[in-house]
Amino acid sequence: MFQTFTDATSPEQGPPRLTALRAAMADAGLDGFIIPRADAHQGEYVAERDSRLAWLTGFTGSAGFCVALADTAGVFVDGRYRVQVRAQVADVFTPVDWPEVSLGEWIAEAVAQDGVVGFDPWLHTVSQLRDLEASVGSVNLRRCANLVDRIWEDQPPPPATRAFVQPVDLTGEAHASKIDRLAQTLGPATCAVITLPDSLCWLLNIRGDDVPRTPFVHGFAILHAQGAVTLFINEAKLVELGDHLGPKVRVAPVDAFLPVLASLGGPVQIDPASCPVIIADTLRDAGTEIIDAADPCALPKACKSQAELDGTRAAHLRDGAAMARFLCWLDQQPVGSLTEIDIVTRLEAERAATNALRDISFDTISGAGPNGAIVHYRVTETTNRRVNQGVLLVDSGGQYVDGTTDITRTIAIGQASAEEKRAFTLVLKGMIAISKLRWPKGLAGRDMDALARVALWEQGMDYGHGTGHGVGSYLSVHEGPQRLARTGTVPFLPGMILSNEPGFYKEGAFGIRIENLVVVQEAPALPGQTVPDMLCFETLTYAPIDTDLIDIDLLTRAERDWLNSYHTDVLARIGPLVDGDVSHWLTRACAPI
Amino acid sequence: MFQTFTDATSPEQGPPRLTALRAAMADAGLDGFIIPRADAHQGEYVAERDSRLAWLTGFTGSAGFCVALADTAGVFVDGRYRVQVRAQVADVFTPVDWPEVSLGEWIAEAVAQDGVVGFDPWLHTVSQLRDLEASVGSVNLRRCANLVDRIWEDQPPPPATRAFVQPVDLTGEAHASKIDRLAQTLGPATCAVITLPDSLCWLLNIRGDDVPRTPFVHGFAILHAQGAVTLFINEAKLVELGDHLGPKVRVAPVDAFLPVLASLGGPVQIDPASCPVIIADTLRDAGTEIIDAADPCALPKACKSQAELDGTRAAHLRDGAAMARFLCWLDQQPVGSLTEIDIVTRLEAERAATNALRDISFDTISGAGPNGAIVHYRVTETTNRRVNQGVLLVDSGGQYVDGTTDITRTIAIGQASAEEKRAFTLVLKGMIAISKLRWPKGLAGRDMDALARVALWEQGMDYGHGTGHGVGSYLSVHEGPQRLARTGTVPFLPGMILSNEPGFYKEGAFGIRIENLVVVQEAPALPGQTVPDMLCFETLTYAPIDTDLIDIDLLTRAERDWLNSYHTDVLARIGPLVDGDVSHWLTRACAPI
Repeated sequence: MFQTFTDATSPEQGPPRLTALRAAMADAGLDGFIIPRADAHQGEYVAERDSRLAWLTGFTGSAGFCVALADTAGVFVDGRYRVQVRAQVADVFTPVDWPEVSLGEWIAEAVAQDGVVGFDPWLHTVSQLRDLEASVGSVNLRRCANLVDRIWEDQPPPPATRAFVQPVDLTGEAHASKIDRLAQTLGPATCAVITLPDSLCWLLNIRGDDVPRTPFVHGFAILHAQGAVTLFINEAKLVELGDHLGPKVRVAPVDAFLPVLASLGGPVQIDPASCPVIIADTLRDAGTEIIDAADPCALPKACKSQAELDGTRAAHLRDGAAMARFLCWLDQQPVGSLTEIDIVTRLEAERAATNALRDISFDTISGAGPNGAIVHYRVTETTNRRVNQGVLLVDSGGQYVDGTTDITRTIAIGQASAEEKRAFTLVLKGMIAISKLRWPKGLAGRDMDALARVALWEQGMDYGHGTGHGVGSYLSVHEGPQRLARTGTVPFLPGMILSNEPGFYKEGAFGIRIENLVVVQEAPALPGQTVPDMLCFETLTYAPIDTDLIDIDLLTRAERDWLNSYHTDVLARIGPLVDGDVSHWLTRACAPI
Repeated sequence: MFQTFTDATSPEQGPPRLTALRAAMADAGLDGFIIPRADAHQGEYVAERDSRLAWLTGFTGSAGFCVALADTAGVFVDGRYRVQVRAQVADVFTPVDWPEVSLGEWIAEAVAQDGVVGFDPWLHTVSQLRDLEASVGSVNLRRCANLVDRIWEDQPPPPATRAFVQPVDLTGEAHASKIDRLAQTLGPATCAVITLPDSLCWLLNIRGDDVPRTPFVHGFAILHAQGAVTLFINEAKLVELGDHLGPKVRVAPVDAFLPVLASLGGPVQIDPASCPVIIADTLRDAGTEIIDAADPCALPKACKSQAELDGTRAAHLRDGAAMARFLCWLDQQPVGSLTEIDIVTRLEAERAATNALRDISFDTISGAGPNGAIVHYRVTETTNRRVNQGVLLVDSGGQYVDGTTDITRTIAIGQASAEEKRAFTLVLKGMIAISKLRWPKGLAGRDMDALARVALWEQGMDYGHGTGHGVGSYLSVHEGPQRLARTGTVPFLPGMILSNEPGFYKEGAFGIRIENLVVVQEAPALPGQTVPDMLCFETLTYAPIDTDLIDIDLLTRAERDWLNSYHTDVLARIGPLVDGDVSHWLTRACAPI
């Protein structure tokens, strides 16, 4: 079983470690030290060794910072984690509402004039440092060795799992071809530095197990404009790759990375949004010209190849069959007989029974009643709640070698209330609006996000997250640069996979979310069409949407038609993959309304 | 009659004037000279004296540039004017597709290295010059006197109409109060320079007749942080104002403007988007610190006072009654008996019959058949077309002392085709979606523009303009900073007036547009509302929408309900203002569908 339900940290661990850190700060002549959640690769999941924020404070959220000073220590967390942080950290730590309070402004206020605050230049990006420098006033920021690493006696070593090949029949393009194609996009730069593991893995058609939930290999790379890559990595990780990497890829130890950077002829391209400060420092100290530009892999990776799309479709059918078995089982259990953990366990077992599950793509969110209203809820033995009458929100996904899935269903447990049905139906209207959308080529997520919300707005309701995120191909379940949200400025292109997941959350009562993955496609021309190029979404996810939760009077004819047509497709595609009880249940669940 | 139908220019005028200009360029040692459409106030309408582009080239559009070189002369026009420019200019001028081709890039290509191109620093904004300088390469841009003024022997003098008071019962706030209120918003600046006439007129509660269609007084002002204004203006314009301006406003001649600027203590705030280059030059030469910021009047002016809203509602009822009389008359004319000019003449006569019309707010667009597909069509005796069976698009508005109106109706002439009805109904769906929208406070036009288009997108259709623009209160019919379009980034605030005007244009065949003005309001709370602050639109425009053009099968129940409720309101509000035939016609036109 991948998911665990224990609390990995406790508030008691924090105070002695903070004391030790303060001693190290004093030794180093620092008034403060910043501990980010991120590792050098800015990923959503970090290795044990890099879980410095959790080790120090007890806070296990997926984003945040601690700033330790001699007399206070702020723990900066965003809106998702305001409740969680209070349960996880001891009172020597002060939770700070971030980003409402910025790191820099807080430091400027809390540190004496001309004070010195240290940070590890591997863990902060160039953009983050620019923002910080612009706001800390007279406080000095000093690059230094990581003081947490200095005091963490049993700190695990860096991850060193064996990388494996992602075969070309699944990627659709050999890595030599990708290297040549991208090398030609560098413009005036002689090379680009790649630090994001999803870019590295995509470019070289490799995967690994360096972090949970996402098949990443950690390393750094330089993409040279003449069509070659230098890969800086622990060579022990590569033993399973055989001769996969080939003549275009030169392997070097991680220790050689900074010296090689210092010897590069410029200009060198970096992505300030993800590039560690130490890389820019090294280039600048060597007098090398730096060009700021987006990671050259980001956009090509987002536009999936035909093989990746074929794979992801297959993964979604497999995953849909597992969902159907799970939903059928759930429907057969008496109301009140299950807990949230039972839900997670059973669903993971159904996915594992496909014999193709490499990992879950994130910890399943199983939220009954009020827990459903906590958008990033992770159940533990402490929070585990009985699934009683009402609605249950289940957000989950699988990592299969041919694709990454992410699906949310909200299910009626016993008889749902009229309020729950109304909210579910309004959310469904938004989800359908996105599913059936066609739009003129050139638009980005921010141009369509409102379409998922307008039915809720009409009733004075809304949800506090974006409508959708990009999804990788057996890579990260959250990937950019595309985003179906008010912050999404990158125009959608064919092959981009996105989630479509509007919701509604009534604090202390219940949560609703309905999520399918979709892929951008050229829209087939219609009679009378006057716009030359239009795009649309193809739905990837096939699993029944609970019709017991629909207030049918709130749907238009076109919305009902969409839902019935979707359920016809679910039955046609998933029906052949299940049998017995599940088959009968699926037929009923897909009946037209 | 305000509107005329003659061609004010002819292609023949251009060549001799271009020859004279080239001689002046040679005298001045210049390889080129730039002639913009704009005057120093960057308004949509310019005085005769400032119509330099039309005088030189024959092109009368509302935006554009000419760049005259020794051997070529480019006339830069946007998508609205690509056909018109070819009819209006002689072949010594070369039409250029702008902004696809930028002014700077064209100059960089056409002018020899280190060549010198002159421009009048009163007529270009600071932002325009920044963009130009960034793109002209090795070409030198030189400030100089206006060479068109030098060769234009009978150039009219600057406008000097008499300004009049806009009474406080219509503005809702005395100008002394506005001055104090805005002075407090200047932050670190000691003063702000105001060059936009709508800002000047709004701030001082005055109006004038310096340009057609918009009741502007031209002048420049400095708003001082201690709560005073220096107004630079031809004093002869002020004779009707009596003691209106009062002790907070010091009047100075226009000649004193630059010397006073040079003597100001800094920092001085300017709006680079509208401030002439010469103002920034003068400040810089004097060593004065400049702060770039939006015109301090822009946002306060956009958020109308209660008195302005009461006035605009009254103006819209008056205008709606004129529209009803016009539409009734139109309905009684035999198919094929009218021309586009007859339409314009009759509609203006109906507005004039209110005895309150100060001007039309723009030249009425009366487009029959294919002319309806030309988005900014202005009928002339040359283009005048008979109004035959099909659809007629009429976009018009009035300037009343209590408000500015802008309304578009598309009317069936005889029996419209199924294609026209379908397009009309899809456009109507978008117009209704905006009309009935509620949204969480904080959103801007770009967050909702798609809602007006999605019904068209679904059928492969769209329109090539924004959905709506801001509208002034007895000021410009096009005002910022709010905008219901993908380019609209300013959050909507209560009191902002916008147009809601989706359309559809089939080139060579017909045009559809339906336009009401709306005003942003706090939305009354609904039962079960969970979003604390929501906004909505109140409709200001009351005139029947042609139900003969509706394909009822394409409307949802909620859309039909909105339309029927709107027509009930039209009848209730406009019914009492008309009688006889018009009253009967209105009752029929407002009958529920």
